[in-house]
Amino acid sequence: MPQKPSIPKGTRDFSPTEVAKRNHIIQTIKRNFECYGFQPIETPSFENSETLMGKYGDEGDRLIFKILNSGDFISKVDDVTYSSKNSASLTPKISEKALRYDLTVPFARYVVMHQNEIDFPFKRYQIQPVWRADRPQKGRFREFYQCDADVVGAKSLLQEIEFVQLYDAVFSDLGLVGTTIKLNNRKVLSGIAEVIGAQHLLIDFTVALDKLDKIGEEGVKNEMLAKGISENAIAKAAPLFSMNGSNLEKLEQLKTLLVTSEIGMAGVAELQRIVSQISQLGLTSAKMDIDVTLARGLNYYTGAIFEVSAPDGVKMGSIGGGGRYDDLTGIFGLKDVSGVGISFGLDRIYLVMEELGLFPESLERSIEVLCINFGDDESIQSLKLVGSLRASGIKAEVYPSAAKMQKQMKYANNRDIPFVVLIGKQELDNGTFIVKNMESGAQETYQFNNPDIFIKKLGA
Amino acid sequence: MPQKPSIPKGTRDFSPTEVAKRNHIIQTIKRNFECYGFQPIETPSFENSETLMGKYGDEGDRLIFKILNSGDFISKVDDVTYSSKNSASLTPKISEKALRYDLTVPFARYVVMHQNEIDFPFKRYQIQPVWRADRPQKGRFREFYQCDADVVGAKSLLQEIEFVQLYDAVFSDLGLVGTTIKLNNRKVLSGIAEVIGAQHLLIDFTVALDKLDKIGEEGVKNEMLAKGISENAIAKAAPLFSMNGSNLEKLEQLKTLLVTSEIGMAGVAELQRIVSQISQLGLTSAKMDIDVTLARGLNYYTGAIFEVSAPDGVKMGSIGGGGRYDDLTGIFGLKDVSGVGISFGLDRIYLVMEELGLFPESLERSIEVLCINFGDDESIQSLKLVGSLRASGIKAEVYPSAAKMQKQMKYANNRDIPFVVLIGKQELDNGTFIVKNMESGAQETYQFNNPDIFIKKLGA
Repeated sequence: MPQKPSIPKGTRDFSPTEVAKRNHIIQTIKRNFECYGFQPIETPSFENSETLMGKYGDEGDRLIFKILNSGDFISKVDDVTYSSKNSASLTPKISEKALRYDLTVPFARYVVMHQNEIDFPFKRYQIQPVWRADRPQKGRFREFYQCDADVVGAKSLLQEIEFVQLYDAVFSDLGLVGTTIKLNNRKVLSGIAEVIGAQHLLIDFTVALDKLDKIGEEGVKNEMLAKGISENAIAKAAPLFSMNGSNLEKLEQLKTLLVTSEIGMAGVAELQRIVSQISQLGLTSAKMDIDVTLARGLNYYTGAIFEVSAPDGVKMGSIGGGGRYDDLTGIFGLKDVSGVGISFGLDRIYLVMEELGLFPESLERSIEVLCINFGDDESIQSLKLVGSLRASGIKAEVYPSAAKMQKQMKYANNRDIPFVVLIGKQELDNGTFIVKNMESGAQETYQFNNPDIFIKKLGA
Repeated sequence: MPQKPSIPKGTRDFSPTEVAKRNHIIQTIKRNFECYGFQPIETPSFENSETLMGKYGDEGDRLIFKILNSGDFISKVDDVTYSSKNSASLTPKISEKALRYDLTVPFARYVVMHQNEIDFPFKRYQIQPVWRADRPQKGRFREFYQCDADVVGAKSLLQEIEFVQLYDAVFSDLGLVGTTIKLNNRKVLSGIAEVIGAQHLLIDFTVALDKLDKIGEEGVKNEMLAKGISENAIAKAAPLFSMNGSNLEKLEQLKTLLVTSEIGMAGVAELQRIVSQISQLGLTSAKMDIDVTLARGLNYYTGAIFEVSAPDGVKMGSIGGGGRYDDLTGIFGLKDVSGVGISFGLDRIYLVMEELGLFPESLERSIEVLCINFGDDESIQSLKLVGSLRASGIKAEVYPSAAKMQKQMKYANNRDIPFVVLIGKQELDNGTFIVKNMESGAQETYQFNNPDIFIKKLGA
């Protein structure tokens, strides 16, 4: 009894059309990464467990896929551990490797291992799958791609400015007009916590503030209260909830609020420089928006924080995000290497583009010319023609067998092939081929010895 | 104490130059796959264990990387199994998923699961990593890419003919001149076993014959004897050891030998058709060679067998291989689907191209233009220029900080950047920029408002 096949939950097969659409996004990101001077690296799909474990918090450790040791792995477990029958203590004894959980920790590991080969500042990009044993749900998978660009070893704000331009360039190239690049700065958040007297509760404060979109002003205030932030402190933070106007106006409001905080004013100055330079350079299709509620729940950011939201009207979480983190490689022993990076959310960008109908129709067209197969003698002639077409970069094929005409034409229709070539006995004899335009139904005859006229028509 | 980082044995980090070279090969393969009408699919990195186990023999089962179940996996193991402390019986209780071992079995699974969405004949390609817990050695890794193209649902020899052309096209495009596409047919091997009276020992016979290159005629004969093939049978097979001449001459010798075997003559007829059509179509840089010793140790081939060897003088195993297999999807319940496919050995092709110096120099060049950073005011002007360059597809960047001139020039040298742009205070004032050709040392001045003259010079 043969198996009825299935795939693990949270994973996906990608059909030719899906691969073409995903590659369209990936290639656009990649082309821009390269134009911006980023270089690709690739790291192994699995790392030594100690490289990954402890880097993502307890929840992250649980979600890391562990790989079972090969061979007679059980014989290497000591009896005391084995008799405990405890998953947590057994795991490190029977598993030494784990699947990549993100691209940031492997990148830090790469930088430390290859520091002597790298010319700093190092601008690297990496587009590879990662794996998380998360509960699968709509838009969340156990295997998914991350598309990251980071600069390490450069503290200048030029990086932040370039990342804003890069987001704009990629989304413009994808036709995704109207994205908003939200910008904040960890120093501003620290400054706010300072001036309201809640430094010691900075994390709770920012986590709560980050939810303003979802739970509203009252919700945020209640959560802050619950976390032990005083009413008085919350009252002082009131301007944050009503901050509005242009970026320059928001900066003025922040300056008023943060005037007594050195770190806060440093953050404002950074935001100001980015806003000013971006307004001089201009953006193609995105707008940039200072958003002091943006925290991304990530405690390792030390400067700029980015997040990109889809065009208005599309319900979707962020389609990109990133920021500056001052000690990327410290966990592996290389101190004082500042990093700043951004990430593109491939799956969400895909869903947004699908919803807005932004994928070029040509992506669904995997073949431009199909030669009907009339038998061995005719098909060799078709193969010759197809050879010329392919040499000009045209995707062309001969139907694999001399099946019934109807079947071959149906295949051409199903695959949405725009041109069908007919070389039957008569054409073979008089050295011609017939091209049928599948859309208009029109037929044209060409000389076999001069396929270039047809090739030119295809625009190749 | 920070960890000294390392990566699992048998895995690799790829530097920017290595990624560029690998992508050069992959893109060449991909472009040709698509011109030949193959469509890309992607399957998950891990499959349900039952999809993979038992498909590659006992040795294969051992080499499959298993993924540990998440959560409290041990609590789900029954006491009897647990108390046995036996790795083999414990594995299926604590691991339900496994990393992809090749692309063929996942493809078969894909075809069966998606049979109602597929327009047969289905020409698919797949370029993805696979994982094997093999002992790592020179040129053998635990994570490596496979590049496969297969056609399912078509029995015509047109496929075989196209695959020979496809090999020739890819290797010609890569500049890998002088490869040999070796061709055999399982039916010929069956025919030989039949006429010498060793049908029941066909596998042993072909496995021994396959070693002719390595262990010579005497070695092969000794192995055959050891496997129980009679002296008489071996004597009858003698013509195989001295087969020579052109493909047509080899075919004549085979016809003489196999005249009494129906299956053998069917194999000869298939070879003959391929040889005849390829000679009419011509090959660009490869030669095709009938090799009756070719068996590839793979028992699932039922018709054509392919193997590609590197140009003479390069010591390297096969750089590609494939063949026809009549029942690809039967294991998953879909009968009578004939398949034929080929594979490209990425890592070996890489090594051969490196040895022969075939990678274009431009691959090592990740940036074409670097703007020296003289400070905030000047760098914004540089960013504007870089914006125009990038919009024309030129890889350009501004040095991330206003470091010392010497440091910035050293960076340009290390990264082999051909053009350095200087916009200092003076250039800013008079609206110009200076371009220094790093090879010749020559400097030219351009008007800032008209960067197109420089862009044209770059050939963009």
